[in-house]
Amino acid sequence: MLLDSIKQTNDIKKIEPKDYPALAAEIRRFIVEKVSQTGGHLSANLGVVELTMALHLFLNFPEDKLIFDVGHQCYVHKLLTGRKEGFDTLRQFGGMSGFPRTEESETDLFTTGHSSTSLSLGLGLAKARDLNHENYTVVSVIGDGSMTGGMAFEALNNATELKGNFIIVLNDNGKSIGDNVGGMSGAFQNLRTAPRYNRLKQNVKNTLDKIPSVGNSMVRQIGKAKDVVKQIFLPNMYFETMGLTYLGPIDGHNIAAMLKAFEDARRLDRAVVVHVVTKKGKGYRFAEEDPERFHGIGPFDIASGEEKRARTKSYTDYASEALLELADRDDRVLAITAAMTGGTGLSAFKEKYPSRFFDVGIAEEHAVTFASGLAKGGFKPYVCIYSTFLQRSYDQIVHDIALQKADVTFLIDRAGLVGADGVTHQGMMDSAFLQTIPNMTLMAPRAGRELKEMIRFSESFKGPLAIRYPRGCAPEELVYTRTPILFGQAEILEEGRDILLFAAGSMVQTAQTLAEALRRKGFEPTLVNARFVKPFDRQLLRSLSATHRLLAVLEESNRSGALGEHIADFCEAEKLPFRLLDFAPEDAFYSHGSVAELKKQIGLDTESILDRIVRSWQEIAP
Amino acid sequence: MLLDSIKQTNDIKKIEPKDYPALAAEIRRFIVEKVSQTGGHLSANLGVVELTMALHLFLNFPEDKLIFDVGHQCYVHKLLTGRKEGFDTLRQFGGMSGFPRTEESETDLFTTGHSSTSLSLGLGLAKARDLNHENYTVVSVIGDGSMTGGMAFEALNNATELKGNFIIVLNDNGKSIGDNVGGMSGAFQNLRTAPRYNRLKQNVKNTLDKIPSVGNSMVRQIGKAKDVVKQIFLPNMYFETMGLTYLGPIDGHNIAAMLKAFEDARRLDRAVVVHVVTKKGKGYRFAEEDPERFHGIGPFDIASGEEKRARTKSYTDYASEALLELADRDDRVLAITAAMTGGTGLSAFKEKYPSRFFDVGIAEEHAVTFASGLAKGGFKPYVCIYSTFLQRSYDQIVHDIALQKADVTFLIDRAGLVGADGVTHQGMMDSAFLQTIPNMTLMAPRAGRELKEMIRFSESFKGPLAIRYPRGCAPEELVYTRTPILFGQAEILEEGRDILLFAAGSMVQTAQTLAEALRRKGFEPTLVNARFVKPFDRQLLRSLSATHRLLAVLEESNRSGALGEHIADFCEAEKLPFRLLDFAPEDAFYSHGSVAELKKQIGLDTESILDRIVRSWQEIAP
Repeated sequence: MLLDSIKQTNDIKKIEPKDYPALAAEIRRFIVEKVSQTGGHLSANLGVVELTMALHLFLNFPEDKLIFDVGHQCYVHKLLTGRKEGFDTLRQFGGMSGFPRTEESETDLFTTGHSSTSLSLGLGLAKARDLNHENYTVVSVIGDGSMTGGMAFEALNNATELKGNFIIVLNDNGKSIGDNVGGMSGAFQNLRTAPRYNRLKQNVKNTLDKIPSVGNSMVRQIGKAKDVVKQIFLPNMYFETMGLTYLGPIDGHNIAAMLKAFEDARRLDRAVVVHVVTKKGKGYRFAEEDPERFHGIGPFDIASGEEKRARTKSYTDYASEALLELADRDDRVLAITAAMTGGTGLSAFKEKYPSRFFDVGIAEEHAVTFASGLAKGGFKPYVCIYSTFLQRSYDQIVHDIALQKADVTFLIDRAGLVGADGVTHQGMMDSAFLQTIPNMTLMAPRAGRELKEMIRFSESFKGPLAIRYPRGCAPEELVYTRTPILFGQAEILEEGRDILLFAAGSMVQTAQTLAEALRRKGFEPTLVNARFVKPFDRQLLRSLSATHRLLAVLEESNRSGALGEHIADFCEAEKLPFRLLDFAPEDAFYSHGSVAELKKQIGLDTESILDRIVRSWQEIAP
Repeated sequence: MLLDSIKQTNDIKKIEPKDYPALAAEIRRFIVEKVSQTGGHLSANLGVVELTMALHLFLNFPEDKLIFDVGHQCYVHKLLTGRKEGFDTLRQFGGMSGFPRTEESETDLFTTGHSSTSLSLGLGLAKARDLNHENYTVVSVIGDGSMTGGMAFEALNNATELKGNFIIVLNDNGKSIGDNVGGMSGAFQNLRTAPRYNRLKQNVKNTLDKIPSVGNSMVRQIGKAKDVVKQIFLPNMYFETMGLTYLGPIDGHNIAAMLKAFEDARRLDRAVVVHVVTKKGKGYRFAEEDPERFHGIGPFDIASGEEKRARTKSYTDYASEALLELADRDDRVLAITAAMTGGTGLSAFKEKYPSRFFDVGIAEEHAVTFASGLAKGGFKPYVCIYSTFLQRSYDQIVHDIALQKADVTFLIDRAGLVGADGVTHQGMMDSAFLQTIPNMTLMAPRAGRELKEMIRFSESFKGPLAIRYPRGCAPEELVYTRTPILFGQAEILEEGRDILLFAAGSMVQTAQTLAEALRRKGFEPTLVNARFVKPFDRQLLRSLSATHRLLAVLEESNRSGALGEHIADFCEAEKLPFRLLDFAPEDAFYSHGSVAELKKQIGLDTESILDRIVRSWQEIAP
């Protein structure tokens, strides 16, 4: 096994070039085998095997700096930096992360998981290097999808100012571009990096420098472009009109070609885009054929490509059904996703109502403000985004939705702990950051059927509304009869006295178990499903304060700014005589692991909560 | 007066074309005169007089839709929509807003004030129109500066999908491009809109449609560009490579030329960029010569161009001095602004240390993540952004700063009420949204000198730190001796008993007045300067709980998620026996007016606070 000889960073340089194909094959087999056991991001990693090998052959770690955009495509990088053993615990509690993680290796410069940040990070590093008069190489690897994010554009626009080298590897894995374009790598490539070409370029530059310059680089390039007929020779006008040098396209499975391009790119004292074309899922038939299904997948059978775990009905599935029902009877209903059609459950909507469905790319800012425009035009848009990616739209929610009182509904998937994706994906902040926003209404369902009812409720609701629900399996229904959803009203599931369990969303199920345990201990707890996080049901709390002395607030959220703090403030302002227990964990970033393990870690498991309630009751018991 | 004949929307259409220049001159005189009295945004409005006239001649309100990006350039639009009288109360409490405002006119479709949102809003409207099979015209007017914002790019990237008409007016007022480029409007313009050209275009398109298409429009265009030698004829490759039709450049002071271009643009069933070149400050000599000073200005003398109010020393000035001192002795100190060099007090820094200063354009997302890269490269970056614009970077602060524990300091100007700029600029949310973020430290100074000390403190601090301070005049110092700044420790300014005033930042000065008033009533209040909002000084609160029964929390922030709620949660968790009064106002968007008027409105004035404290004390007095 060639792979066994790679025990630490830079060991790949000892491999003979003739063995690169064999090593690539070993890496692919290894990744398929490991991911088939643990689950993980498969397609993207199979696509970048040769690219990552080439980068590791090209760069010297730790001096040189390599940043993967998003980071789910870092498995090969982990393998080549001595983390082979980690794959047995990939994405598991206490195990190796599925994303770059600074604690794991000095070659993981940043702990990442969100899109379109690598160019800004790389540009910062390159600029720092130049200010320090150092000489290392900085490479950011970014996918064509991530390029649709606005902050990548902001970075490109600023990259033109750089006077030192910065290599941007555009990992272009768009399926249909694949092999076609990959074959075009010859002619232009040689032209572009030849000394003659660069002299030509210099002459052009000198001419341009005599034209009065303008304030910002983009417009400057627009202005210049008019005069630079020579740009007609350039194969890639988009980057060139931005003022960036472009090399490519290069076959991203040809290591020699990439090494040549990287060396060429490094010779230039500026930002250079190296356009590399790769094939997602390469080398594993099922992933090649359906890269989206294998983007992030649970444990699967290698021979059949089938997932091992039976798929249980998730909140996403319920949301999907409810939104489609709404769309069936109301033409105003539109659905918007930011490159997460499948993940947010919109595939059926897209198929049935293609003209009312919008995938805007990885562009959460635009998604939200676009929805505001659609609402103003008389429609009822539903913006479906994962909790942590919605952070990207905070100002848009404030300025373009809440301030306008726009009639837009957010379906926030992956709210709360997400498990294996870990620290950048835990949806532990949306409840808090949405509650800071005036005019927002925030709901959380306790079960799949309640989510459907909340989505039905949203149809007649006017104004900014968000519904947050967790990843994965949804209880279809608790044992209780459901009461109709009315604005701002909680639902009493069990009536008792002394102890009031006020639970939101996913924590209602936990609270039900708690209530049973408390009853076994002789208590008669009241169990309330908050339904509305903002505004929470103040009237109910006032009235229950007469018969209850201990109020336990349960929400799957970080503590600062979440429901518990708002209730504490309310109880204080109204002088309600509750002893208040806020079970929200302290603000922190939580790593990967199963949701159950994580809940235990942060005290959101039934046992921890029960213990604290009983102890607190003993303190205040009459 | 021609202007007197314009009493309502569409009245401009009754004006004879020969009178347009005279009307434009009247409008300029009117705006200069009014703004010289009330203060306001001058340069941008003087630049768009003819552009706005042309748009009002071109469009039919209210059917057609017009959106100004940011919106500070909407004065001419307000004049042409029957709001002439409003200019006497411009930006004053209860008066007319300096930005578009839905409550004022049906022609103000959105209440705006932030950058780069108009394309997403316009695209949403255009799409809604098409889905409704309606036929109105949608125009978004966006400046070249706003185009540097990532979300404008996201919208452009999506605009290529539109099958109906959408006119994007690129208002290019870059000073040095000005007259030069404005003269180029002839030749290309006629070529581009001629039927022959569009047939040519169609042929190209048919050819391209046979090439296998790829996933997203940007990359598709990249691919196409290789083959489309015909694009060499296009004057503006940037927009064309994005897949958008480009018309221009047009002289933005030539109404006839603009009308022709708008009519041409409307004939196309797609998104069209009309590039209009205008001159900022046009028609008022002082504003033409120094458009930045007249961007937003207080009352001024028309004859001399001098501001009437003596400029008092602001928090911005203190920040500016302190950062420069730091830079003098520490080479690692860098400064970053998002197109607000003057506003954030960085002009001197830029002049003295040009290589350590970065203006990234209106690109708050990139600014923050770029800073994270610089910090990783060994530097000490200071990101200087206004409170409400920092909202644009929320995810970047979470993902690229806090999660990384990046050693980056945020100097947050305009935190708290800002006064005349109004609803989109009130910095009433930063305290809350920053407190939701793990690993963040948030400070607030009570006076100019304390701000300087906090910035000095930041130099040796490691990790994410934010310092928030308000717009305008800073008290140099209160009467108290200052104690050294230590992490997480508040400062006791007056020691007493029973009543504890726990004030943050700008509210310390108010609390000082309060303390005096309370002493006159026979109380002996304790006055504490919080200094640290997160983490606030828990130890001090614990120890003072023994001798104080009433705790008043004072912070210039909306209530949800702000200091008061965190303290309520803490007091509840620790069972501190305070009667807690949280003076933070309810979550809301506050309109324009003087800061004093606004504070009175929301109960943050001394009288309101004093009254509530005394009443509460009477309730709990022994």
